[in-house]
Amino acid sequence: MLIVQKYGGTSVGDLERIENVARRVAAAREAGHDLVVVVSAMSGETNKLIEYAHHFSPNPSKREMDILLSSGERVTASLLAIALQEMGHPAVAMTGRQAGIRTDDTHMFARIEEINTDAMRSHIDAGEIVVVAGFQGIDQQGNVTTLGRGGSDLSAVAIAGALGADACEIYSDVDGIYTTDPRIEPRAKKLDRISYDEMLELASLGAKVLQSRSVELAKKMGVTIIAKSSFVDGEGTIITEEVEGMEAVMVSGIALDRNQARVSLREVTDRPGVAAEIFSKLAEEQINVDMIIQNASTDGTTNLGFTVPQSELEQAREAIAAFGDEIGGIDFDEKIAKVSVVGVGMKSHSGVAATAFSALADNNINIEMISTSEIKVSMVIDEKYAELAVRVLHDAYKLDA
Amino acid sequence: MLIVQKYGGTSVGDLERIENVARRVAAAREAGHDLVVVVSAMSGETNKLIEYAHHFSPNPSKREMDILLSSGERVTASLLAIALQEMGHPAVAMTGRQAGIRTDDTHMFARIEEINTDAMRSHIDAGEIVVVAGFQGIDQQGNVTTLGRGGSDLSAVAIAGALGADACEIYSDVDGIYTTDPRIEPRAKKLDRISYDEMLELASLGAKVLQSRSVELAKKMGVTIIAKSSFVDGEGTIITEEVEGMEAVMVSGIALDRNQARVSLREVTDRPGVAAEIFSKLAEEQINVDMIIQNASTDGTTNLGFTVPQSELEQAREAIAAFGDEIGGIDFDEKIAKVSVVGVGMKSHSGVAATAFSALADNNINIEMISTSEIKVSMVIDEKYAELAVRVLHDAYKLDA
Repeated sequence: MLIVQKYGGTSVGDLERIENVARRVAAAREAGHDLVVVVSAMSGETNKLIEYAHHFSPNPSKREMDILLSSGERVTASLLAIALQEMGHPAVAMTGRQAGIRTDDTHMFARIEEINTDAMRSHIDAGEIVVVAGFQGIDQQGNVTTLGRGGSDLSAVAIAGALGADACEIYSDVDGIYTTDPRIEPRAKKLDRISYDEMLELASLGAKVLQSRSVELAKKMGVTIIAKSSFVDGEGTIITEEVEGMEAVMVSGIALDRNQARVSLREVTDRPGVAAEIFSKLAEEQINVDMIIQNASTDGTTNLGFTVPQSELEQAREAIAAFGDEIGGIDFDEKIAKVSVVGVGMKSHSGVAATAFSALADNNINIEMISTSEIKVSMVIDEKYAELAVRVLHDAYKLDA
Repeated sequence: MLIVQKYGGTSVGDLERIENVARRVAAAREAGHDLVVVVSAMSGETNKLIEYAHHFSPNPSKREMDILLSSGERVTASLLAIALQEMGHPAVAMTGRQAGIRTDDTHMFARIEEINTDAMRSHIDAGEIVVVAGFQGIDQQGNVTTLGRGGSDLSAVAIAGALGADACEIYSDVDGIYTTDPRIEPRAKKLDRISYDEMLELASLGAKVLQSRSVELAKKMGVTIIAKSSFVDGEGTIITEEVEGMEAVMVSGIALDRNQARVSLREVTDRPGVAAEIFSKLAEEQINVDMIIQNASTDGTTNLGFTVPQSELEQAREAIAAFGDEIGGIDFDEKIAKVSVVGVGMKSHSGVAATAFSALADNNINIEMISTSEIKVSMVIDEKYAELAVRVLHDAYKLDA
């Protein structure tokens, strides 16, 4: 089998941990697999470099930031290759450029456009373990680029896809995907399998194991991801296409997002297109609007509510100010939480939403906004009930069973 | 004027010092110069990375070491470019590869084969300050290479040569080249000018401001080097072709090398070619033999003496053991010092050596070995007289005048 493994910053956080990773890689090699290993920078290293840059400028140029930030992964890649060689396993370190990773020229948030696998392939064919510096590539002009937060996952998935690898194992300090955050609900259970779509809902809703971009790419390229811990042995969680057997599971997990804020617009002029104008303006300002509700009006005006990330609330406030007279009043509420029930089984089962609503009602938790999709039900509630709501819903769907 | 500036590890040793360097570069820019700035890694950084590698292997693979070690210079180059931009000066950071530096494939000690200056040139023409990560390049296959100790000086000189720059300013924590080590002779004086050849003798003999390789390259490419301090203002020392006016100076400086050891071979079979065989063997083992003396014999044997670096003494011992019966006895002496008098003026003045011999004799310092070239006289003496000999010679040639 050809396996791509990716080890995150915590997994390569110090020299002992890099040695530990080398032992894991060596074990997989000794089990007969061909291996490409993608590594992040040692944890803390990237933040240190960002601090360095901010010593000189509050807003350092992104092109130079990419040369700066890409150095951390090069260090871990070369050290891991050296450790593997010392264990008697031929290994070769490759920078993003050497691994053939070509991106667009959006510095600090580049998209991978193409991977020329020739060099990696010839090292694999020569029996070498290929260790790739994650998070980086070069653009058409040869400038160094980085892929943004979670970029090493993206490197790993893209390489797995380009090489047609049998699996892409993503190692971190957690041993898989859980039905919900175990710090909130100790009875949370690790999932054996989860579909891309469910993982996307869980990831974007606050389960931070895998970045959405990586899951989207894995889905697009048909790469099977296995989320594992580099510290304990275990099967991890397989993230793959939705399969027959999975439909039996109605709900996979409960996600919690505390970083949203609610904006309520009262007495908005009720003329056609006014909502569209407001949301176009927000989109223009690159504000990520999530849930939207609109109440029909009786007096020629309407009420409009939506959520935005708390970090974008100020921007949203300014954008809306532009509409002046068309809006009667605005309320902002940061003390909200969004809990979401996620599961592909919902598609074929009715009553999933009803179970959530009545479970929360039984516990006197008022639902302020609701949005539903084929595989999730999201509810905005008062922030103070956040943990209780997660536990109540986890119980209602018997996820600890 | 187009000026190449190079700042060493101490000059960019922390963020405040990088800021200080940025101010110097900005001042040169504001004086109207076009600038290419070559930087080393922050001092201590390269050693830290070497220690990391040695955690995993006593003898880490050189190809991987080059990816590892080249990261330090990328950090300083990007930070300096960011600092310059913040000061309002358009600047661009370039890796060795981006600066077009192509080397052979001798990892960790690569030689620059070619510099494609197109990219640097177009940034200069666009009015940008080009900041280049020193010490590094890529080979024909695209592997990252480094140039060995003092490699950033080499990058700077080669870039200055390739661009036809008007000068190559090498900044360190000393303000120029001195007549001898000021820690030994406080009356040592800074030289205004020195020829490449003199500098080569001083560098290889222990004056550590500039590596010999850089001076050789500067000589070959006709690059004028100016050695300056990044901490104090001053004219520094100009290293250039020997010129008319320089001939007036008979002796430029006194160098001291404490790192040599003497090997004395007694009663060597006196047949033709035996000395050649011994030195061929030492050359094969890559042992750097420096001074050699041979005494004519009266009894069919000969005595042979030579010096090697102390660090290579053990290797030399083993190499010589192979000659067994051909050698009557071997003595090793690490307690020696080599003092050298250097000056292009010697070529046209007789009596320079005699002055040295009588100055040492007047102070009861016995000379154990002598070697002379057109521009230097080297003498091996008992180590305990090393400093005294330097002061006596400095005085004999009136270098403090």
